[in-house]
Amino acid sequence: MNTAVLRLNCEDKKGIVYNVSRFLYERGGNIIDAQQHTEQLDNRFFMRVHFDRGEMKTTKLELRKDLDGLAQEFNMDVQLAFGDERKRMAIMVSKYDHCLYDLFLRHQYGEVNADIALVVSNHPDLERVAESFRVPFCCVPVDKNDKEGSERRVLEIFRQHYVDFVVLARYMQVLTPLMVNAYRHRIINVHHGFLPAFKGAKPYHQAYEHGVKLIGATSHYVTEDLDMGPIIQQETVRVNHTHSAEDLVMMGRDVEKKVLSFAVKAHAEDRIMVYRHRTIVFE
Amino acid sequence: MNTAVLRLNCEDKKGIVYNVSRFLYERGGNIIDAQQHTEQLDNRFFMRVHFDRGEMKTTKLELRKDLDGLAQEFNMDVQLAFGDERKRMAIMVSKYDHCLYDLFLRHQYGEVNADIALVVSNHPDLERVAESFRVPFCCVPVDKNDKEGSERRVLEIFRQHYVDFVVLARYMQVLTPLMVNAYRHRIINVHHGFLPAFKGAKPYHQAYEHGVKLIGATSHYVTEDLDMGPIIQQETVRVNHTHSAEDLVMMGRDVEKKVLSFAVKAHAEDRIMVYRHRTIVFE
Amino acid sequence: MNTAVLRLNCEDKKGIVYNVSRFLYERGGNIIDAQQHTEQLDNRFFMRVHFDRGEMKTTKLELRKDLDGLAQEFNMDVQLAFGDERKRMAIMVSKYDHCLYDLFLRHQYGEVNADIALVVSNHPDLERVAESFRVPFCCVPVDKNDKEGSERRVLEIFRQHYVDFVVLARYMQVLTPLMVNAYRHRIINVHHGFLPAFKGAKPYHQAYEHGVKLIGATSHYVTEDLDMGPIIQQETVRVNHTHSAEDLVMMGRDVEKKVLSFAVKAHAEDRIMVYRHRTIVFE
Amino acid sequence: MNTAVLRLNCEDKKGIVYNVSRFLYERGGNIIDAQQHTEQLDNRFFMRVHFDRGEMKTTKLELRKDLDGLAQEFNMDVQLAFGDERKRMAIMVSKYDHCLYDLFLRHQYGEVNADIALVVSNHPDLERVAESFRVPFCCVPVDKNDKEGSERRVLEIFRQHYVDFVVLARYMQVLTPLMVNAYRHRIINVHHGFLPAFKGAKPYHQAYEHGVKLIGATSHYVTEDLDMGPIIQQETVRVNHTHSAEDLVMMGRDVEKKVLSFAVKAHAEDRIMVYRHRTIVFE
Repeated sequence: MNTAVLRLNCEDKKGIVYNVSRFLYERGGNIIDAQQHTEQLDNRFFMRVHFDRGEMKTTKLELRKDLDGLAQEFNMDVQLAFGDERKRMAIMVSKYDHCLYDLFLRHQYGEVNADIALVVSNHPDLERVAESFRVPFCCVPVDKNDKEGSERRVLEIFRQHYVDFVVLARYMQVLTPLMVNAYRHRIINVHHGFLPAFKGAKPYHQAYEHGVKLIGATSHYVTEDLDMGPIIQQETVRVNHTHSAEDLVMMGRDVEKKVLSFAVKAHAEDRIMVYRHRTIVFE
Repeated sequence: MNTAVLRLNCEDKKGIVYNVSRFLYERGGNIIDAQQHTEQLDNRFFMRVHFDRGEMKTTKLELRKDLDGLAQEFNMDVQLAFGDERKRMAIMVSKYDHCLYDLFLRHQYGEVNADIALVVSNHPDLERVAESFRVPFCCVPVDKNDKEGSERRVLEIFRQHYVDFVVLARYMQVLTPLMVNAYRHRIINVHHGFLPAFKGAKPYHQAYEHGVKLIGATSHYVTEDLDMGPIIQQETVRVNHTHSAEDLVMMGRDVEKKVLSFAVKAHAEDRIMVYRHRTIVFE
Repeated sequence: MNTAVLRLNCEDKKGIVYNVSRFLYERGGNIIDAQQHTEQLDNRFFMRVHFDRGEMKTTKLELRKDLDGLAQEFNMDVQLAFGDERKRMAIMVSKYDHCLYDLFLRHQYGEVNADIALVVSNHPDLERVAESFRVPFCCVPVDKNDKEGSERRVLEIFRQHYVDFVVLARYMQVLTPLMVNAYRHRIINVHHGFLPAFKGAKPYHQAYEHGVKLIGATSHYVTEDLDMGPIIQQETVRVNHTHSAEDLVMMGRDVEKKVLSFAVKAHAEDRIMVYRHRTIVFE
Repeated sequence: MNTAVLRLNCEDKKGIVYNVSRFLYERGGNIIDAQQHTEQLDNRFFMRVHFDRGEMKTTKLELRKDLDGLAQEFNMDVQLAFGDERKRMAIMVSKYDHCLYDLFLRHQYGEVNADIALVVSNHPDLERVAESFRVPFCCVPVDKNDKEGSERRVLEIFRQHYVDFVVLARYMQVLTPLMVNAYRHRIINVHHGFLPAFKGAKPYHQAYEHGVKLIGATSHYVTEDLDMGPIIQQETVRVNHTHSAEDLVMMGRDVEKKVLSFAVKAHAEDRIMVYRHRTIVFE
């Protein structure tokens, strides 16, 4: 529990690993795991360090302050997350329940390093599912003439529940920039198509029409550009001529659950970094 | 060897299986394998029957004639292929050799039920590969100002070598309608992208730019509509942030070989039927 | 709904397809789908015919009787199932709930062509899950000194609920021959290992010890020979050195659900035939 | 080119990453990539550091000596490999050529960071393949009554060709401890079964008999314990009732090539560490 995750990125140059490891060593931190990546084209260096704070004398506040000093010296972007400050997620749904059940169950099995703060939906249908897992449920209908108004209500609810990130578990509404900006790179969506193919509505029917032999699903961060945010995970499943568009919908449910839960787990463990429309997902 | 494959499609109605099996039974044919499919939306019935002619008295000519009668009665499209008339394929290549080697080796292992008539290329580079497998090689450079002229030469060569179908094994030229029409639904191409995403040039670089987490390849019949012909097979492979566009090219080679050889084998065994831009591939 | 599935197997000889299709045609049946397979080594023919009875005059009883005649003529084993006599399944569980939830949800989505008659468990823990899906739940503790006694109680309950087949959804007890014989080739188990490797207890820990790079799960019919019954489906998932035995348990849950639900769906649709310790699963 | 790979393992304690990165930093080395792993059960730490020596003043000899000092201080096992000392591999084959072609072609495409020193075979058949890629070929028949004598000849040939590691590309002879000891953890074998299932001879036929629904292949280091050496990679492919044992052999070829080439590439790049019958493969 008494651990932390440091993520940083900066121009690649000699001595970064040395300076970061020295920074932690001098303060009594013990590196549990570290991963790094260099984007060759941009000469950009990315690092994630998971470390044990058990023997550190430094308070959280001091650690953040000291880290700012290091960040300035190397012109780094840094992010620090503490293991004892578990993230809180909101799940947004409409009427489909498969991703919701999947997240509830994985959470119950201890697979997801985050708490489920609540479920928000534009329909009342899935309240009984939330109830059976004893998770708070809020129904916020979407007013087509005032989407921002509805989102403002949702954001207010999020604030009340200390929501750190948002999971769109087959939420069937397009978000406005208001919501997207409030939770930039903290809203995870699942698209039931193999993006960038089959953007927009009814991707399984598009796939059927094209006669593809694999269908897929994609989890990604939400940006203003519909279905074009940084991709976190993708998965495909083989289909053939015997499958109707309805069969594709059924088969797609399994891959949707897989890519969405992958993304949620990775986000909760601070293993994702976004750089120029692409994600670095450390495993 | 003394076998045949009958493929047919017609409006779905009662008694087709019965009538087809009676047709063969009365003539002494023994069904080895049979597959069928109904396109519900169009009420269209598709059937493939692989049968043994060993005890049939009927000659090939008579069989074809009798079959025409059956076809007329049920308003069927029928295709009949005899096992002792092995198909002959031409392989077209440019400079990449991985698909060429793969086809040569699979042919050598007896995986492909067709003969390799020859290799045609717009470059001389791969002659030594064809030579090492003792397959004829023709170099026909493409004149950018007279593509049809070049294709006419290729078609003449195909006629001389009794070519039944054509495999574009990373052939880097777009065909004109002249060639496409001459071998309609008998030209198999491999596209190094997960169609319909990443049509056109440099699909791996497009995939890299989009930050996808799976790359793919697609084998399909060639039509006038570039990269949009009926898809035969698709395959994907997982990639991540550590892979450069060049890595994707490397990783893609393996999936290209896989989807192309799948298509070539299926076509050679008369297991593919095309209906409205989609393929039915019986396994 | 007014359909039926005929499964048969017999020595392979000329005219079987013809005679079966004639049999149905003469009685007004319309073949919706048919699959066949020949085991070359044994010269044994297998066939599954899915047909529409909507225009058949023959009653169910007459059809069965007529079919017996055909079976005698060709020395066939035949099985006939009517679409309007939906199968009823019992699910047996212990304390793990992931396969149970998966079956409940797939049933709810209409993926499984069978009714869930009830859940039987040797522990009371999962009653609330059954309750939330409104499925009857019976707790029958297992007396180690009288396993057959416990099974007799379970069999009695099955009779009361008209149970056609049994799904062991991570039921942690070995069945005695009493139960196995009562539901021969109608009890489906999921083993959390890639059989025949890792038979018996703690397969994930065995896998971990061996340092395998893929773990798997297997669904199979239960026979007297523990974990050695005819395999229906298998699936693997990639693992590596970073995964502990506990991680394998977690990752295994997803493949267990996949192979078990595949088997349940195939069994419910009468798509499985068993021949000499092996299954033929028509797709 | 002017790079090196350091691999080390030791008891896990605070400061290792710091001390290793300081060691390199002080000598002007620049870390390109670093991976680490801790075996929790044994409290054992593993690390691989890929670094640039371009600006290092230290000679190779000095670096090795200094490293010995560090190793002693932390009681580490260390291994150092220089990028400009490309490894040389010997490929051993019998009569199957698919893995041989695969390795030749991948080497030609620049996928394998090693030189192919020569091919050694107990049969003359594949000489023409080696010749077409201009790789030296030695035929050393195996005397069943003096296997060690044959291996001594092979080892002598390896010495003459400066062979660093050995790839058994479907070499059909069991090695004696003489050879195994001479190249401990430097002989890579491909087994055409999903180990530990189907050890020994004719694994595809064993798999067929068991009616498995997936077949696999395994690459591993060779030890005295036949087919039980540390596993490097495994892969499976789906099969069904329509596939004969001969089909499995054919389908297996593709997975054999995949797992063997994976292992060869990983070994050539010093990405594998062996610990207690298990491998750590850094990606």
